[in-house]
Order: sequence, then C-alpha cells, then structure tokens
Amino acid sequence: MNPFAYKQTLEQFFMEDIGYGDWTSDLLFPEEATGTLTFISKQQGIFCGKDLLKTGYALLDSEIQADLPIQDGTFVSPGVEIASFTGPVRSLLKGERVLLNLIQRMSGIATLTHQAVQTIADSHTKICDTRKTTPGLRAFEKSAVRAGGGFNHRFGLDDAVMIKDNHIAFAGSITEAVQTIRSSLGHTVKIEVETENADQVMEAVAAGVDIIMFDNRTPEEIFELQRLVPSSILTEASGGITMESLSSYRGLGVDYISLGFLTHSASALDISARVLTEKEEVK
Amino acid sequence: MNPFAYKQTLEQFFMEDIGYGDWTSDLLFPEEATGTLTFISKQQGIFCGKDLLKTGYALLDSEIQADLPIQDGTFVSPGVEIASFTGPVRSLLKGERVLLNLIQRMSGIATLTHQAVQTIADSHTKICDTRKTTPGLRAFEKSAVRAGGGFNHRFGLDDAVMIKDNHIAFAGSITEAVQTIRSSLGHTVKIEVETENADQVMEAVAAGVDIIMFDNRTPEEIFELQRLVPSSILTEASGGITMESLSSYRGLGVDYISLGFLTHSASALDISARVLTEKEEVK
Amino acid sequence: MNPFAYKQTLEQFFMEDIGYGDWTSDLLFPEEATGTLTFISKQQGIFCGKDLLKTGYALLDSEIQADLPIQDGTFVSPGVEIASFTGPVRSLLKGERVLLNLIQRMSGIATLTHQAVQTIADSHTKICDTRKTTPGLRAFEKSAVRAGGGFNHRFGLDDAVMIKDNHIAFAGSITEAVQTIRSSLGHTVKIEVETENADQVMEAVAAGVDIIMFDNRTPEEIFELQRLVPSSILTEASGGITMESLSSYRGLGVDYISLGFLTHSASALDISARVLTEKEEVK
Amino acid sequence: MNPFAYKQTLEQFFMEDIGYGDWTSDLLFPEEATGTLTFISKQQGIFCGKDLLKTGYALLDSEIQADLPIQDGTFVSPGVEIASFTGPVRSLLKGERVLLNLIQRMSGIATLTHQAVQTIADSHTKICDTRKTTPGLRAFEKSAVRAGGGFNHRFGLDDAVMIKDNHIAFAGSITEAVQTIRSSLGHTVKIEVETENADQVMEAVAAGVDIIMFDNRTPEEIFELQRLVPSSILTEASGGITMESLSSYRGLGVDYISLGFLTHSASALDISARVLTEKEEVK
Amino acid sequence: MNPFAYKQTLEQFFMEDIGYGDWTSDLLFPEEATGTLTFISKQQGIFCGKDLLKTGYALLDSEIQADLPIQDGTFVSPGVEIASFTGPVRSLLKGERVLLNLIQRMSGIATLTHQAVQTIADSHTKICDTRKTTPGLRAFEKSAVRAGGGFNHRFGLDDAVMIKDNHIAFAGSITEAVQTIRSSLGHTVKIEVETENADQVMEAVAAGVDIIMFDNRTPEEIFELQRLVPSSILTEASGGITMESLSSYRGLGVDYISLGFLTHSASALDISARVLTEKEEVK
Amino acid sequence: MNPFAYKQTLEQFFMEDIGYGDWTSDLLFPEEATGTLTFISKQQGIFCGKDLLKTGYALLDSEIQADLPIQDGTFVSPGVEIASFTGPVRSLLKGERVLLNLIQRMSGIATLTHQAVQTIADSHTKICDTRKTTPGLRAFEKSAVRAGGGFNHRFGLDDAVMIKDNHIAFAGSITEAVQTIRSSLGHTVKIEVETENADQVMEAVAAGVDIIMFDNRTPEEIFELQRLVPSSILTEASGGITMESLSSYRGLGVDYISLGFLTHSASALDISARVLTEKEEVK
Repeated sequence: MNPFAYKQTLEQFFMEDIGYGDWTSDLLFPEEATGTLTFISKQQGIFCGKDLLKTGYALLDSEIQADLPIQDGTFVSPGVEIASFTGPVRSLLKGERVLLNLIQRMSGIATLTHQAVQTIADSHTKICDTRKTTPGLRAFEKSAVRAGGGFNHRFGLDDAVMIKDNHIAFAGSITEAVQTIRSSLGHTVKIEVETENADQVMEAVAAGVDIIMFDNRTPEEIFELQRLVPSSILTEASGGITMESLSSYRGLGVDYISLGFLTHSASALDISARVLTEKEEVK
Repeated sequence: MNPFAYKQTLEQFFMEDIGYGDWTSDLLFPEEATGTLTFISKQQGIFCGKDLLKTGYALLDSEIQADLPIQDGTFVSPGVEIASFTGPVRSLLKGERVLLNLIQRMSGIATLTHQAVQTIADSHTKICDTRKTTPGLRAFEKSAVRAGGGFNHRFGLDDAVMIKDNHIAFAGSITEAVQTIRSSLGHTVKIEVETENADQVMEAVAAGVDIIMFDNRTPEEIFELQRLVPSSILTEASGGITMESLSSYRGLGVDYISLGFLTHSASALDISARVLTEKEEVK
Repeated sequence: MNPFAYKQTLEQFFMEDIGYGDWTSDLLFPEEATGTLTFISKQQGIFCGKDLLKTGYALLDSEIQADLPIQDGTFVSPGVEIASFTGPVRSLLKGERVLLNLIQRMSGIATLTHQAVQTIADSHTKICDTRKTTPGLRAFEKSAVRAGGGFNHRFGLDDAVMIKDNHIAFAGSITEAVQTIRSSLGHTVKIEVETENADQVMEAVAAGVDIIMFDNRTPEEIFELQRLVPSSILTEASGGITMESLSSYRGLGVDYISLGFLTHSASALDISARVLTEKEEVK
Repeated sequence: MNPFAYKQTLEQFFMEDIGYGDWTSDLLFPEEATGTLTFISKQQGIFCGKDLLKTGYALLDSEIQADLPIQDGTFVSPGVEIASFTGPVRSLLKGERVLLNLIQRMSGIATLTHQAVQTIADSHTKICDTRKTTPGLRAFEKSAVRAGGGFNHRFGLDDAVMIKDNHIAFAGSITEAVQTIRSSLGHTVKIEVETENADQVMEAVAAGVDIIMFDNRTPEEIFELQRLVPSSILTEASGGITMESLSSYRGLGVDYISLGFLTHSASALDISARVLTEKEEVK
Repeated sequence: MNPFAYKQTLEQFFMEDIGYGDWTSDLLFPEEATGTLTFISKQQGIFCGKDLLKTGYALLDSEIQADLPIQDGTFVSPGVEIASFTGPVRSLLKGERVLLNLIQRMSGIATLTHQAVQTIADSHTKICDTRKTTPGLRAFEKSAVRAGGGFNHRFGLDDAVMIKDNHIAFAGSITEAVQTIRSSLGHTVKIEVETENADQVMEAVAAGVDIIMFDNRTPEEIFELQRLVPSSILTEASGGITMESLSSYRGLGVDYISLGFLTHSASALDISARVLTEKEEVK
Repeated sequence: MNPFAYKQTLEQFFMEDIGYGDWTSDLLFPEEATGTLTFISKQQGIFCGKDLLKTGYALLDSEIQADLPIQDGTFVSPGVEIASFTGPVRSLLKGERVLLNLIQRMSGIATLTHQAVQTIADSHTKICDTRKTTPGLRAFEKSAVRAGGGFNHRFGLDDAVMIKDNHIAFAGSITEAVQTIRSSLGHTVKIEVETENADQVMEAVAAGVDIIMFDNRTPEEIFELQRLVPSSILTEASGGITMESLSSYRGLGVDYISLGFLTHSASALDISARVLTEKEEVK
C-alpha cells in the first residue's frame, strides 16, 4: 500500500461528493453534535474495505473514533456489524455515501473472487485478475481480489511485458518479438506471451519466456497445450471464461486462470450505514 | 460537461495504467509505426462513451485521427464498429485498455437503464439514478444513465437538500427540519424529504417541500401515499426496488423511481478493440 | 463546508505568498522563538473569517494554539480582539498577511451585506448574492454573505438552471426553452427564468418555472410584475440595483433582491495583526 | 508572465464555476451551435485583462476565434468593444462569468491605480502596490497595477527582505537585524526597513539598507525624514494614505508611495458581455 | 514513456524556475520578438535529452519550431549542434536554464554509463542502474542509462521483489522469506534475493528465485558463487564497485553489474545554449 | 522554508518510488512489526538533510519517533550516527531509499561547497551558487549550499534581474537595457549585469546597477575590472571556474564567486541506513 496515493485518492472521492458542502447536514446539525455511524452487512459475502473506512474517516475528521472489528477477507452474514465510528455527526454523514460506495464495490469483488476460487476448487490452479478494473480504483480492486483469495496479474503496462497477437504480427514471430524486447528490457521484468496453438506454445517455450498465456482456448485445448510447457514456465488460461464454465477448467494443470469479470462485472455487496445521533441516543 | 474536469480525470486514468511506460509496445513498435484501432461491439446493448473515446485519444496523441459514427444512446448489436482511430501504434495501444474499461462500464450502465425504462413501461413514471455511483466516475456514470433514457438525481451533497430519517429525528419533526434548513438555504436549491407513512407525507406536503420520497414502500403503499400529494410536488419511489420487482411499480402515479443498481451493479457491456498495424495492412 | 476544498485552497494561498520562504523572519527568528499574534478590528463592521483563521494556522503549524472568541456574523467595533494565536513566531508571521487579506475581504462583504439588509428593511424581501464573486473565493465569499444576513444564489452553472435572453432567443420562446430543458434535466434542479415584461412573466408562470427574475426593472415595473406571479413561484429582482437605490425596492413583494456589488465591489474591513514575541513579552 | 501558472489558475477558476456542467446551455444549445460574444465597457476607466480573455477562451475551446483590439492600460469609455470571440455558444457561455469577474476586477484596479497616479501628480514620486492582494490573484492584480501606471512592491515573502518593528524589537536594533540577515542572505536580495523617526532613519542609512520605508508618517514628517536619506537609498511612504489624503504627499521627494487600497478595496469596472447566437444573427 | 507524466514533470520544473515571470526578458523583449536558440556540446560524451528538449519547448510555446538532428545515445564532440529552436525570444529564454540543467545531467549519466560499458568490456556482463536516482527524475535518469548502453534495474518498490538481509533475518531464512512472499505475490513479478556466501546462494537457488545478487563480494568470491547458479537464474553483482575496480569484474560470468554511481555521482556534461535574436541576425 | 512546498515535494518523491506499494516489505512484515532505522555516515564530509529526514518520516507515518542529533552543516566522519527512527518497519523501509538519495545528494553539495570555501580562503570573497540546480530540487540544493558555508544567488527568473549579452545586444547597450527595465521594474528587485571588459564595467557602473558580474574573465582581468567598481556596487566572478583554478581567484577583491559545479556535478556523500527489526533486537 502506498499511503500517499491512498489518501489522495480518497480525498478526491470525498471532494466529488461533497462539492461546496453537505447543505442538509451542515444546516441541521450544530458543529458540536456527535453521534455514531455503524456499517452493517445486509447480505452474505466476503468483506473488503477496512483500511478504506479507517483512512477515510481519519481524513474527514481527526476527532472521529474508529472501531473496526472485521478484517478484510472475512466472511460476513447479514446483520454483522462491520465497523462503527463515533464523532461529529456532520463529518460522519459527509463520508457515509462515498465509503459505502467503495466498500460495497470492494466486498462485491472479494465475494465474486471467493466464489471463483471455490468453483475452480483446484489446489494447483490459482484465480487471478486482469487490467479490466475500474479506472481510478485499480489498487483498491486488486486488493479486493486478494481479499477474496485471488492473485494479481500485472498492475499496469510497466510492471510486466505482455506480448499479444499485434506485437507478434508486427515483429514477425514470437521469437523475434521476444528478442527485440529482451535486448532493451530490464532483467527484473517478466515476459508473458499470448499463444493460440501448439506451434506458438513451443516457440514461446524455446524463446524462454516467463509466462505463457493460452488465449481463448477450450479446456481440451488447454490440457494439450499445457503438456508442452516445462514446469519452469508458468501458464495462464485467459479469455471468455465465465463463472458458469469455470469448473470445466479444473484439473488441466494450468497455473493461473485470469478472469476479467471479477472486476468489470461484480455487483455491489449490500452493506448499510445506520446513524445514531446523540439526541436519539438520549431518548 | 466540464471540459477541464473531463480532461483531468482521463489523464489520471491513463497515468494509473501507463505508469513508467508501456514496455511491450514502446520496445517493439518504432515511434513512427502507425495503425488503426477499431472498437467493435460484441454484445447487444446501448452504447455510451463517444466523448470518452474522442477526448481520450486526443489527449494521448494529437496525431491520432478519429472516426466516431455511433452516438451515445444508440442501440448496437454484435459486430457494430463503434469508433476507429488511426495514428501512432504506441499511442493507440497506450489508451486501449483504459478506454475499453470506461466505455464498457458506461455502456453497461446505459443498457441496464434502458432495460429499466423498458420494464417500467410507464409514460408517467421516469427512471432515475442515485449517488450510489463509482467514486471518481460520477459525471460519466450519470451521463450513461441519461444515454440509457434515465434521469439524474442530485450529483452531490451540495446541489439539493435531502432530509432523511436521521435529520428528522434530530430536528424533532419534518416541519422543524424543513424550517431550520429553509431559514438558511439559498432559494435556488430544492428540498426533498424521505417519508415512510401517510402522516409524514402529509406533514411534508404541508411543509411545502419540493420532492417527497416514498422510502422502501410497497407498490400498494405507494399507490395510497401518492394520492396524498398535490401535483405541484414531485414524488419519488426509492429503496429495495430490483429489475425483477420494477414492473409492479407501473401505474402508481409516482413521478420518479430511483434505482441504485443502475450504477452499483451494472455488468460491463462486451466491447473489443482490434488493432491493425501498418505492417499488417500491407499484407 | 467541504474540509478538503477548504484546506487545499488555503494551502495554495499560503504557497503564493511564501514562495521559497520568508527570508526576513526565517533569518531573524530562531526556530524555537515563540510569540502571540492578535487580530484586532480597526473599523466597525461585521466580522467573518473565524474558520479561515482557525484552519489557516492549523495548517501552517500544528504547534500553534488558537483562541477565537468572535463568531462569524458578530458586529465588531474598533479595538475588538477577534482572535489570537500563540506559537512559533516564524509560523505566526508566515500566515499573517494571507489571513488578513482573506478576513478583511470576507468581513468587508459581510458588512456590506448587513448594510443592504438594513437598508431594504423589508421582512419579506431577502438580499442575496450572485455569481459575480472573486474567482477562487466563491465558497468563502458566499459564506460571508450569509454571515452578513444575506442568502446565496446558485453556486455555479451546475446547481440551478438560469434561462437568460440568449437562451430564450435561441429556443424561440420561454415555453420552448423550459420544455427542452425539462425533458433532460434532473428533477432535483430548479429552473429560473429572466423576464423583462408582463408577457414574459405570464409565459414563465404558465411554463411552471421555479423562480422568475425581473431583470433590470424599475420598482414600479416590479410592483406590477410581482402581481402576476402566484405565491408558489419565487421572484427575484436583479440588475442595476445600488445601495443608494435599494430602499426604493422596499415593499414591492418581491422575494429576493440579488446584488452583484456585495462581492464585486466590497471594500476590505480594516483589521490589523499585532505580534508580541517572547522577547518583547519579557520586557 | 509564467504561462504554466497562468493556465493552471484560469483552469481552476473555470472549474469552480462550471462544476459538473452548464446545465442551461448544455441542454439548450446543440454542440454545433456557434455565436459571437462581445465584451463591452459600460463605464469609463482603464482596461486590464487582454491576456486573461485570450488565454481563457483558448483554454475553454480551441475552436474559438479571438479579436482583441484593446490593449491593457487603454482608457475606455462606455460602449467601447473590448474584445469579441466567435465559436461554439456552449463554450462562449461557459467562460463568460469567470472572465467578466476577472477583467472587471483587474480593470477596477487599473482604474484606481491610474487615478492615484493622476492624483499624486508628482514626476518624482511613484505609486506602488503592497501584498494586500486577493489570495490567488496576486500575479493578475500586480499586473493590473502596472497597467494603471503603478509599480510593484515585492511579490511575496521571498523576493525581498522587509524588516518591521517586530523584527527590530526581537533583534535589538535595526543595526543588529540588518547584520544578522545580511550574514546569511543572498546578495541578489534587497533589504527594506520600516522606520518611524529620525533616529531609526539614520540608523538604517548607516546600516546600508536598500530601501527605507516611512511607516505611517505625516507629510510633514516625511519631508523631514526624506532629507536624512542619501539619494543612493530609495524611500517609500506607507500606511494610512487614502485617495483623499494622497495629494498632500506631493513634492516631498519620497521615491514611492505604497497603497494597499489599490488592491484590497477596488470596485469592479462595469463591463458587460453580449452574446449573439447564429440563430439570432440569421434574423 | 508516459506522455502525461512527462509533461507534468516538465511543467513543474519550469514553474520552479519561472515563478512570477522572467522579469529580465519579459521587460526587454517585445512579445513579438523572435530568435533562434541553439544547444551546442562543449565537451565530448554521449548525448541524452532529445525528447526533453522537444517536449519542453512544445509546452512552453506552441509557436516554437524545433530542429533536433541528434538522437539520444549519439556520441558528440565539442561544437556539435545538438538542437535548435526558433520562435518568440521570451519563450526561448524562459526554458533555456531548466532544459540545460536536464540535458546536461542526462548526458552526464549517459556518458558515465557508456564509460562503464566500455570499461567492463564483457560481452556477457551487462551494466545496470539502481534506485539511487535523483528524486523526481527517475524516469529520465533511467532513460539516460539506456541511452548510454546500460540496462534498468527495477523502477520502484512495486515492480520487483528484492529480499535483503533485514527481510531474511526477520523471516528466519531465505527459504521462508521466499515462501511467504510467493504465497501472496502476483505471478508476473520477479523475486531477487541478496546473498553474501555460498550457503545463501545455494538456498536461493533451491528456493527458485528469479535473480540472485552477490552483495558486496570480491571478484574472486563472485567467480566462485556464480558457479553455484544454474543458467536459468540471473545473477547480479552489486555494492562498492567503482569505475576504477570495474574491470576486475570482467569475465566472472555474472549477468549484471549494478552501479549506483551512474546516477548518484555523475557530473553534468558541458552543453551551452546560444541565442541569436532577430535584431542580431539582421546585423 | 515553505512548509507546504516542502511536504508536497517529499510526497511526490515517495510516490515515485513506492508506486502501488513495497511488495517485499508489505508481504513480509506484519503491520504491527516495529524496528529502528539508523542513518550512518560512511565518508567524511558536511551533513545536510536533517529537516528532510524529520519531515519525510513524519509524512510517512505519524507513529515513527525521530532522534536527530546532527545539525545541518556539521562535519561528520565515517561511523557517525546522523539520525535514527523507530516505528513500523514497513514505513521505515518505504522511506529509506528516497531519503538516502536526498541526504546523500544534499550532503555531497554541502561538502563540495565547504571545500570551495576552504579553497578560496579569502575573508572578503564569498562562494555562491547558480541556477544550475537539479530541476525539482532547487530549494533543497540551495539550502545545502548554505549548510556548506556558501551563499545563494537568485532562486529563479523572478527574484532578480540578470542582464546578459543577448539582452544587451537586443537593447543596443547596457545603458539602454538598464533604462528599459528600470522603467517598469519594481523597486525591491536588484539588477545584475554581465560584463566582459572595462568599457562594459564602466557603463554598468554609470547605469547604477546593483551587481556587476565579470563573465568568464581571468584572475588578472578581474583584478583590473574590480578596481573600476565603487564599493557600493557588488561584484561577482562567474564562468569556467573549477575547484582546481579557484585559489587563483583569491585576493582579487571580488565580492562573490559563483560556481555551477557545486550543484550540477556534486558526488553523493556516502551515507548508509541500517535497520534493526524488533525480532532481530530480541536476539
């Protein structure tokens, strides 16, 4: 985690929602009115968002006290109290919607990832994400995938090389593409190549790439292609795999299955926030 | 549209993905290599994202030429060419993933909104969004709701007042809450109040609010509550309404139905990008 | 109030004045030298700027202790101690000029607004501001108008619709302009229209707008036009009204009078800052 | 002028006013509708703001054509066409209010400065500004002072040393304060000292400062103090001088008179913007 | 290259130097005065900085025409014309110092790297950089290392894992450290481990790391340690190697030698800028 | 020092190195693991960087405790403990490299400056820096020059006027250049002029400039030129002076010698950081 990026991003999100101010609460609650806001799960799933809540409310108001009993990656059922915050009501309400939007989304992704891990049910084959994340939320969403038991593929265009069909076509061959890149690339960066058939897989093995992706291949094809790859090279199945078809990829020996839908099509996990103001408590 | 916010946001999204550079393409394609990248629909739905594509590629490289035949809100079927861009391959590929992530999400929201509009099938009752949007993407997602035939609820905490149960409890009553707010609020800002029963609705009517929300009410309850409200006050049904239950809200006379799932649980519409480099074209 | 915007803006203002450092104080005062800086009114008027002082010095140096006895909106006469701060002299002096510039300006606006409210002396007609604020200071200046007893017109182009003569001319008529806008506008946004004669006012009433502005009309004209508007629609007089002519608008029944000069032509209220360093205190 | 600071500041100002968009114009005018917006003086004074208009509209929309016949520092009478812009109506209207707010303020300052220069009517004594500028607008306001025939005092705490009474009290004497500062200060930075009597002036002369300020002195006092200063050291009268008292400082031999009111209490010069849309032109 | 990061960084650098403006040139040269500025090598070495010059002047003024005959990585001798720019003199001079500071530094690094590559004179062993770069300049300095014929080590803490002695001590052993990390790390990220003796090297080999660093070892030790590592694992010598001792590392079979001094102790390559203004040309 | 600029710059530097996170330490050390990191000199020289260390670690983690016994400008020999920090290991390691890169560079500059001051060994002639600083680090590097006993030349283009040969050529003569500038320049800004011969020096003296630079002159020439300048005008020798030739400029009577190499070609002073984790301490 990068604490500076974390804070800057949260500040921007609050700015987007707050604008010139929260007219309703700023005009109704006196500055000194305090209360308690509790986040409660309304649906079962895997929670992710503890640091978002903690850092978010710390940024909003240094007078807010936090109680965060639930860790990321924990299974929650409806009614579980995820976290609660006590402090100025105005600040509690200013952050509520933004933080709910974030933790509902992250928990949705963690839950979907967990479901994928349960579905593949293969001790060898790991589930990983892609770069098909929501712009602006990549660090958070990749953290949610880890909370759900998945692994992270590259974070951006600069932390691993991924040679695709266009690159191969332009370079002339996988071999030429790998050579060109290796002649300039730093030795700390891995090279992955997309392949579609046995010839390409064997060429990639010979070129000594670090990871071979089987792109849009059927389970049967993957089973055959996997046998061409020595154990020193990692393999990854990708493209067109759905939660429905996922179990048919079990037992193929592939190291990773990357799933775009984990991040681009997750539904929010239902979490609500209940506020109790001082005045109400008194009653 | 705010052109400055639009550009700043897109730049940030590109920065997130590009990092120190796109090693793969920067090392493989010479600076002068050109090509054409075409966005093609792979699923039927409502497209939204023309300005994102246009502005995005303009920011990436001023040498890129754009062809954008499809307007926001257009129904697309699989195989439709949504847009195509010609220019330096490096720049085309640097923007591909970020822009796909954005337009797939926006088109997913537009499609879901369109489906909701079709489902309610009520010439009187309009579908609208909420503040349950993805942090950082509110302007884009609200634009997608409009592209799908929906309407926008408030954009943030500062462009309309929304009096909820906490506010009412603290103020003592709807009447007192409205009075307190009105004594300081600018006259250009509307006041909406959440109600749960006939007494609250009648109190809100008497208080002269601009919009009355029926919060988490059944269709039957809404039908009764709606009759208590004069036509000069707008009404809105909200809370717990799903695509499945939506048609049961038809014909109740309510002015707006707000649906959080339009933005917090939309799946991406499948759109792909095909790149043809100069060299390939030659073949 | 948006705490993030507040801080970012103040930081920028300090950066503008401090540049590479305050050579004079940084070279003369040792890091550990402390003192007390007191803001004192030198002219009578309405003070506005408590939060600016509090947040400003908190940003500059967490070691500074604040004493802020005077609230925004308070009448001050010459010699009143508005606020005092104790801590490192270097930090006290680094913030002095920027904060004086801000609170003098805000107090000037609050004082002018208060004078306008006193002048109109009409329990029905409220004084409000416009968008003729100093760029970069809108939130602060609109807060100053409230401190002086005035109300806020819209904060920007996005929180209310204002249909002016150009819009009407282009659309063809007020009716057509309102219809076009309403077919896309969210239901939480009010519509105001500028009118210049009885026909336009009646057309606006029929179109069901939320607010009708009488643009550059004489008191006599406003009196007549106001009678055409039902009480459910708010009215606003605007254009060319000065402090001198303001009292002639008393008793016309108009709901709001908007005055650009409150913000574009307010003189600073004279406030000074007196510093007492440790060493001086010893004497 | 710093082109980067100029653009960043203008962008921020537009962002403040535009927010999520200009609902009125965005919904009424089609993207392709064009028109012409003309800035016209409604009051006599000195215009300042040509670069603001030019850069402002260039940032808003690259399709806008500019015609800028009037230079900064030009005397304008009511009815003079200051500048006109042709292009997309939406963009013309998005920038109108912000740019009017800026050029009205800058022209107000230039006009007031010009009036001060005319009032002092002394070929030897120059009028200059202070750091009592509007936060965020210092560069623009100091440019307006120059446009009005005035000169600029230091821009911030880092481009000249200014030794005030607090500094002197803490250091023990003017001599000690100057020595301490000089032992660390770069040789490209001038030192100015505030003085209140003949002893201080003579001490400052002996200390070899670059500029001596006569702080809050009467014309008579200044006349006497000025005679103590050799011509190699510049002098400046400051503090409590108003437009009304200014002429009494004529002929005293002081080099500069600095006036805070030029920037902290200038009224806006009345300038209006008239828009003619394509459709209207056709008529 | 990331075009957005590139521009933002350059803008910040110009802002640092320009401040409120270039008084000297802004006051002396009329806006319309044009000229030509030529960058000329005054020392022999490897040039690096073409894109900096090109992008830098494009940002400063769109009217500037560029002529950039020399590519990055080219050997230049004294007197070579590296680049020349024609346009407004004010803009040419505003950018001169910042761009000289950058290209002198980058060319200094490229030259030093080239010298290291010549010195090691080993077709197998490559020279690479470290993270000991100037804060804020990492992307530029790593590009300069490539221009000089070197390779890049990791760009930051997030694009490769580097297990150092602290990590090993805390985890208990290399084996445990690698296992812990691998259980959470994405498969696209390489793992490097620092070793100091044969036991550690053998443990690292057994743990299957991607890169083994020989930390602060003598050439003799490296020769022995290298023999313990299979060719599928890359090796790197690091720590305490100087230009003087570099040749003694020739022929040891190590894959990479990383040198901190390439970036932390490079001297600037002497390059000057000559300006010829229009007026001078006329003569 | 400007506390806001200081923090913003350090945050940016940490962001550059940390990226998405420090995989190695984030995965190996639990959040609660604490330790102590000590900065130790490994080479003799002048230390500079106390505030960088203090502010840097305060920004990274508010739980870190600092011990900073060594002041800027102190001579350190190998083995001296410069500073130590105790707190969460993850945070200690996240900041280590960036802060080392900064303090090694600043200490290198302070050491080189100190050496220059020792070399010139002239109680009259002071050593000063130039604008040949590393972009983005000017404030820090100029502070390092002061720590080494040197003085600062201007910080940017806006805090002093420097008339060079181009300006003179364009204006026609030194006299005309000075007059043109003085007619618009604020009186708090000094004017320096570059001269190359006796005629120019005498013209500059007559024009009454504040500082005269002898540009690229031999010690003999400087000796002669210096005699032409009255003591009320400061003089500066600049251009082509190296550490080797520096002593030959002793005793010439020149006030300042400016040396670009102090900042553009300083080698890093060797400083290391040793971390001791809790677990290790236990042993």
